[in-house]
Order: sequence, then C-alpha cells, then structure tokens
Amino acid sequence: MRDFILIAGPCAVESLDEIVGIGKSVRGSGATHLRYMLYKPRTRSDAFQGVGDVGLEWAEEVKERTGLALVTEVLDPRDVEKVSNYADVIQIGSRNASNAALIREVGNVSSEKNMKVILKRGMYHTLSEWEGSFGYLGMEKSNVWMCERGIRTSTSLDHSRNVLDIGAICVLKDKGYTVIVDPSHGTGKRELVERVAIAALSGGIDGLEVEVHFDPIHAFSDPDQAIIPSEFDHLVRNIEKIREIYLS
Amino acid sequence: MRDFILIAGPCAVESLDEIVGIGKSVRGSGATHLRYMLYKPRTRSDAFQGVGDVGLEWAEEVKERTGLALVTEVLDPRDVEKVSNYADVIQIGSRNASNAALIREVGNVSSEKNMKVILKRGMYHTLSEWEGSFGYLGMEKSNVWMCERGIRTSTSLDHSRNVLDIGAICVLKDKGYTVIVDPSHGTGKRELVERVAIAALSGGIDGLEVEVHFDPIHAFSDPDQAIIPSEFDHLVRNIEKIREIYLS
Amino acid sequence: MRDFILIAGPCAVESLDEIVGIGKSVRGSGATHLRYMLYKPRTRSDAFQGVGDVGLEWAEEVKERTGLALVTEVLDPRDVEKVSNYADVIQIGSRNASNAALIREVGNVSSEKNMKVILKRGMYHTLSEWEGSFGYLGMEKSNVWMCERGIRTSTSLDHSRNVLDIGAICVLKDKGYTVIVDPSHGTGKRELVERVAIAALSGGIDGLEVEVHFDPIHAFSDPDQAIIPSEFDHLVRNIEKIREIYLS
Amino acid sequence: MRDFILIAGPCAVESLDEIVGIGKSVRGSGATHLRYMLYKPRTRSDAFQGVGDVGLEWAEEVKERTGLALVTEVLDPRDVEKVSNYADVIQIGSRNASNAALIREVGNVSSEKNMKVILKRGMYHTLSEWEGSFGYLGMEKSNVWMCERGIRTSTSLDHSRNVLDIGAICVLKDKGYTVIVDPSHGTGKRELVERVAIAALSGGIDGLEVEVHFDPIHAFSDPDQAIIPSEFDHLVRNIEKIREIYLS
Repeated sequence: MRDFILIAGPCAVESLDEIVGIGKSVRGSGATHLRYMLYKPRTRSDAFQGVGDVGLEWAEEVKERTGLALVTEVLDPRDVEKVSNYADVIQIGSRNASNAALIREVGNVSSEKNMKVILKRGMYHTLSEWEGSFGYLGMEKSNVWMCERGIRTSTSLDHSRNVLDIGAICVLKDKGYTVIVDPSHGTGKRELVERVAIAALSGGIDGLEVEVHFDPIHAFSDPDQAIIPSEFDHLVRNIEKIREIYLS
Repeated sequence: MRDFILIAGPCAVESLDEIVGIGKSVRGSGATHLRYMLYKPRTRSDAFQGVGDVGLEWAEEVKERTGLALVTEVLDPRDVEKVSNYADVIQIGSRNASNAALIREVGNVSSEKNMKVILKRGMYHTLSEWEGSFGYLGMEKSNVWMCERGIRTSTSLDHSRNVLDIGAICVLKDKGYTVIVDPSHGTGKRELVERVAIAALSGGIDGLEVEVHFDPIHAFSDPDQAIIPSEFDHLVRNIEKIREIYLS
Repeated sequence: MRDFILIAGPCAVESLDEIVGIGKSVRGSGATHLRYMLYKPRTRSDAFQGVGDVGLEWAEEVKERTGLALVTEVLDPRDVEKVSNYADVIQIGSRNASNAALIREVGNVSSEKNMKVILKRGMYHTLSEWEGSFGYLGMEKSNVWMCERGIRTSTSLDHSRNVLDIGAICVLKDKGYTVIVDPSHGTGKRELVERVAIAALSGGIDGLEVEVHFDPIHAFSDPDQAIIPSEFDHLVRNIEKIREIYLS
Repeated sequence: MRDFILIAGPCAVESLDEIVGIGKSVRGSGATHLRYMLYKPRTRSDAFQGVGDVGLEWAEEVKERTGLALVTEVLDPRDVEKVSNYADVIQIGSRNASNAALIREVGNVSSEKNMKVILKRGMYHTLSEWEGSFGYLGMEKSNVWMCERGIRTSTSLDHSRNVLDIGAICVLKDKGYTVIVDPSHGTGKRELVERVAIAALSGGIDGLEVEVHFDPIHAFSDPDQAIIPSEFDHLVRNIEKIREIYLS
C-alpha cells in the first residue's frame, strides 16, 4: 500500500523457521515491516522472555528471505547500539514508555544512524506524558512513529484488554506527529482487531502494527490477540478499500 | 440515509424558535430525529436545568414544522407517562444508567406504547453493567438503542472529555443489540466529532446522536462539543460515502 | 461510642427474624443505627431485589426489639414519602448518586421532617460531582452524612472491589461536611474491612457504615464483604481505642 | 522510632548545603534515612533532571554530617554498580516499575552487596504486576521495601494527585512483604500528608518515605507535596503515639 506503514508478525520470535514463514506470508499480503521481537518485557520473570541475542544472528537471513525491514523492541540501554546493527526500526514498548534512560539512548543511536523509532504510548500515559517521552528522544516528528496501543480502564476490562483512544490519534495528527496504531494490544481480542484497525483510519493514521501468528492459541505470548495470516490478508484488503475513499 | 438513525440537535432546548430552526437545518442534512431535551441532568443544581414542561406544549408544533421525530430524556419516573404523550423516543441518560426505578418505568411505558428507547451507557459502566440495565427495561433488543457515549479515564483527561469505546460497540453488535453512538459526549471536543463518528461506523453501528447548535460557545450547556449545521452537513455527507463502502 | 455514628447490618434485609437477630447483636457491640435495606439496586434485574414494602410493616417491631434507628435506601422518588414514615435515615446509594430527581425528592421530604440523609459517593464521582449532588439536596452540611464507599479503578481490581479514598475524606472534612465511611463496599473483602475502617479514622470521620451478617457466604447479596458479629465487635473495640488517642 | 523505617528529604538534591541542612533536621525528628535523589525522572526532558553524578562525590560528607543512610533512585542500569558504591538503599521509581532491565540489574548488584532495595509501585500497577516486578529482583521479601505511592484515577484528579491504596498495603503485608508508604506522592497535597500517613499505619506498614523541604514552593520539583521540617516533626510525634497503640 502506498504511503502506509504496515508492520506485522508474531508477538515474539519463536524460531527461525516460524518467523521466516510468517514474514513471507505477511509480505505477500502487503506488509512493509516484520515484527521481530527478541526481548520480551513480561509481567513475570518466569514467563518466556524472548529468544534474545540469538535472534540477532538470524536477522540478515530473515531480511533476505522475507524482503521485509525488521522492527525490534529494546529493553535495555546497553543493547541499543548492538541491536541497531541488525534492526531497521527500534521500538520502545509501553512498559518502558517513561524510561528516560532507554529513550535517550535510543534517540542518540537512531539519530546518528538515521533510523526510525516507534514510541508506544504507556498504557497509562496522558497525551502530555507521551509527548514528554517523545521530547526525550530529541528527534524530528517525521522520524518517530508514535504508536497508540490502547489504554487500560476499569470500564473495559470485561470485554477488552484495552480501549483504543481514537481521539488521541486525531489530536496527535493535528499536531503534526507521525501516528501508527496497534489494534492487537489496543483490543486484546482477535475478533476486534480488524474493526478497530479500520476505525483508526478515520484519524488519518500513517500505519498499523498487527500481531499475526500461524497458530495464535499456541503462541508463547499474547495468545488472545494475534490474528492468522488469512485474517491479516482480509484486513489489508479492507484497509486498501477504505483508504481509497479517505484519500479520494 | 437509508436504515440509519440520525439524531441531531442542541444539548438542551433553549427556545421554541431556536429548536425549530435547528430542526429544519438538520432535517435538511438528513437527520431522522431531533434531540429535544427538556430536563437537563447537571452536576450542579444552580446550573441551567432545562426549559422543563413548557417544552411539552411546543412539541406538536416542533414536529410539524421540522418533520422530525423527537427524542427526549427523562430524569424522573413520575414524568415518563406524561413525556411519552409528546416524545417519540425516550432517552435514559448516562447519569441515570443504573437508575433501576427509572429504567423499569421507561420499559413499562415504552413497551405498552410500542416506543423506542435510548439507553446510554454509564460513563463508568462495564459492558455487563450496561447489559444489566438493559435487562431492567424488559424490552427486545430491536426496540432499544444502546448508545455508546464514551468512558471517562484519567489517561484521556488532558485531551478529551471521554474516550469512545469502539471495542464495546463491536461486542454489542456481535450480541445482536441495536447500537448508536454519541460522538459529542464521546469526545467532548467539536474538532474530534466527525472523525470519531466515522471511526464508529467500522463497528457496524445503527445510528448516531450528535449535538448541533447554531452558536455552540453561547449554548446553555456543553459549549465545547456541539458542532454547527454546516459541520453537521459535512459529517452526514462523509458518513454516506463511507457507509456505501461498508455496505457494498 | 460518644459522638460517633455506627451503622451496621446486612447488605439487605432477608427476613424479620434475621434482621432482629443481627440488630440485637450489633446493638450489643455499640451500633447506633441498623442497615435496614428493603429495595436493592442490583446490576441485573434477575438478582434478588430486596424484600420490598413488606419490610416497612416490620419496621416498628424491629426498632422496638433492637433499640436501633433504621437506615433505609430508596431507589424511586415515588417511595420517599412512604419510606420516610418508617425509616429514621434515608440513604441515597452509589448507583443513584447523580439521580437528580431522587436526590431532590429526598431533600424535600427530609428537610420537612427534619431527617438525616446519607449521600453515598458515586463509584465514579469526582469530588465536584459529589458536592454537586449534595447541592441538589438543598440541606445543611450537618444533616447530610456524606458516605465515602470507595472508587473503582483498573489498578485495584485484582485485590479489592474498590479503593477507599482517604484523601477525599480529609478534603470534605476540611470543608465542613459530615463524613462517614463504608469500609465494606470500600474494599469488597471482609479481611480488609477492619484495617481500612481504622485507617479512615485518621481523616476525622464522623461514623462508619458496616455490613454485618451471621453467615456472609450465604447472604443474598455481597457475600464477600460482610463481616460476622464477633468481627464487628472486635472492630468496634479497636475503634474506641484508636479514637481515644485521636481525641486526646 | 524502634523498628520503623523513616525516610525523609527533598524530592531532589538541590545543593550540598541544603541537603545537609534538611538531613540534620529530619534526623533530629527521628528519620533513619535521607532521600538523596540525584537523577530525577521527569515528564519533560527540559525540566530539572537532578544534580547527577556530582552528588555521588558529596555522599560521604552528607552521611557523616547527617548521620543518616542514603536512599538514591537509579534510572539507568549502567549507573547501578556506580551508585551502589555511595548509596545505602537503591530505589526503583514508579516510572520504572516495569523496567525489567533496570530491576534485574538492581537485584543483581544489591544481592551481591547485601543492600536493601525500594521498589515503588507503578502508578498504574495492579498488585500482580507489582509482584511480577518484585520477581525480577530475585531477592528475599525482607530485603525489598515495597513502596505504595498512590494510584492515579479519574475520580480523584480534582482533589489529589493520586489515591493511596490502603487495601493493597494490607494484602501485601498479609503475603509477608515489607511495605513502606510514600504519602507525599500518595496524595500530592501537603495538607493531606500527615493524615494519610497515619491512616496507612493501620495496614501495619514497616515505614514511610516523606518529602521534606525547607521552602517547598520554591523546590525544583513537586512543590505541592513536600512538608516543612516542623510539620515532619509533628507527623513523627503522632506516628509514635499511634504506633504505640497498635503495638500494645
């Protein structure tokens, strides 16, 4: 899709074969970037923490075989320089959305290497706080993809993990930010992903980041929110159709 | 618009001339119902409480001159029977979304007279609580318009009054409810109304309820969220365009 | 206890014998008022709705046999006059904390009959909104017992039903309100009731409203938060001990 | 005070003289530890970020002249080893409460050096998430001071910055954790600090962390919530009085 960032892939890289397989599939549907998550921030330390550095060794091969640019989340400022040698876009996740040390380091390395950065909104962030974190990057608005990923509220907990804040998207776009949306975390329920993703188009977003897995219920993390490749393809077709109207 | 409930009008009726004027205007743009609010629930008792019963005397003339059906909110079970003689649709507002006595009375009177009811979501309601309130009506899903009007969260307060819960809309539609959306309360900011209204279409909603005023900043209530007639017309044109794609 | 409002009793009246039994028991521990709840606001219409009007017929006997004044919640403005003939204190519950019609009626009847009113905080009420509802009563601060009963938050849901807002208690006391606390709803967990009740003393509260039941897990409603008579007695003894220090 | 952790001092170290002055003062009132904050996590990058490493050079002198142990917050895993050479207790702040890389590093260094750690609750943390972060430390419950510092809610924003969650304190104590309370962030209003601190005693807490400044309204950060030395002294005297009752 012209002028649209389309990041797709599993919550976490689980094996080389699996990530190449998903990469090829989502590339076929029109993805521009692969979610290539090696270090997983989890609530509990005894949960799966990602494959870690071994994934960096696979990076070259994955890029070659899938033809996609790689998005990798970093958790530790000591990893930023290293990861920047393999990944194309560095992501700062929701749990680290107020982690000034990490954000500064990512800003420095990415500025130097002219890389894009994804700055996810904290699940509890006001817009001012999110913009405050953007300020720690020291980067241009065009180089930072502000990613709305839903906020947690007591009112929504019985039907969705988070509530996507369409109003926040609109306000950020009006202020000149580059804005993408993660409808997977933004809902936490795969049956809502497509409808919420398409709703977000109305805010004039610049892209989407979507969890796609061959077998979501057996995924190592976030089993409830990943969609399967055929659903991703359906989603992309509908986005194309609706964007055409908006852009016409 | 075919098969789409389009309720528009001021937050509160302020005078006969004004409401007829707005009614004619929104009718011209395609509205099907007029917001005809006579009793205003307000946070403070010294704020404008609505014109009250005098508005009932105007009702016949308003209907005739605008050609629109009237939506009126009731606050007191003792008013339901009376109001049902003048209004076409009775609304239960967010502040009374857990008011069992009022909901039961509205359910009884509306069932008997075969009237539609709008049941707004409490600004703090989980989906279960909202469905619980629906149960107190004792009515069919096709006769109750469940109106999502945004939820209040600490994360959104610096940029919008409430956050529209797109996921809740989708879940209710999947359960067979009739769902409409109030993007005026759902955002609290007029510059967000159109974009959020259009976003909600993605959930397959059955209609919209929009605050329209000739001179919003001088409105007796909710001055920040009403749009003017030309903006309403623009909104309706875009809804038509987008719905065509969804329905095709 | 001198100068301390101590309301106790079951979530709902279940039978004449049971309420008299609990009343005698809590009276023995020092209660000044009996929770005498006949009309229960519930999330679902198919849940137990209270014994209703039959309880009014029992009222005289209950007062006589227990020696306690009765606190009764009303849900419907049409019931206020009637209930005021039997109850000593009328309660407006959290679900009706923004129900202007009910609050006005309670204010009118209570003013006329010189009765006290309990105005519970809405579970979603800001302090301004709660004070706004107080304004609808049209009564003096000394005649209205503002009852803090906890607020619902996404952060607390895995360990308690609500979070008691100690700061709000302090601010209201500083403004001259009469403030009581409901530690049963304020926590939703019986094992937290005593500690949270005693914590609230630090805010200079004027009383407590506590759910007490002979057999909580078989109570018709709120089984998790009622304490048994011996726990209530323990709580009262500790309150006496701590209040002595505060007042010394 | 016997067996009670009493941490006091300014939000941030502003100068050597000032911190020594406050240290001597709070020591005189009974403080056991000095807040010695050198690296300030702030919402905006153009706000005061702390005096930084120069404060480490002052540390020896400050300890000597005040007789107090030092509590220092770290923001960056690369600083932990260095800071551990000067500070007595390392604090992980609310903004980093889900920062797994930092928490792990603090756990490793503190375990090795047998230091205590303060783990503040995220302002949005459920109890499970907070306990999850505790798990990343890999330390004993007796060596980690879990610090409740209030949660942010939409209902409280008009009267306090956060709401102190007394219930959470009780649940953690029942599970065997060491729990301290920060009533300064827990309310955000100096006039509430003492009352909320004393309320927390009811949960059986092991200590307090309180912001004290000679001239709060001119403090470089958090001007609304610091108390002055005489207020701190008053607070300590009252804690002693109330604790005596609880412990008797």
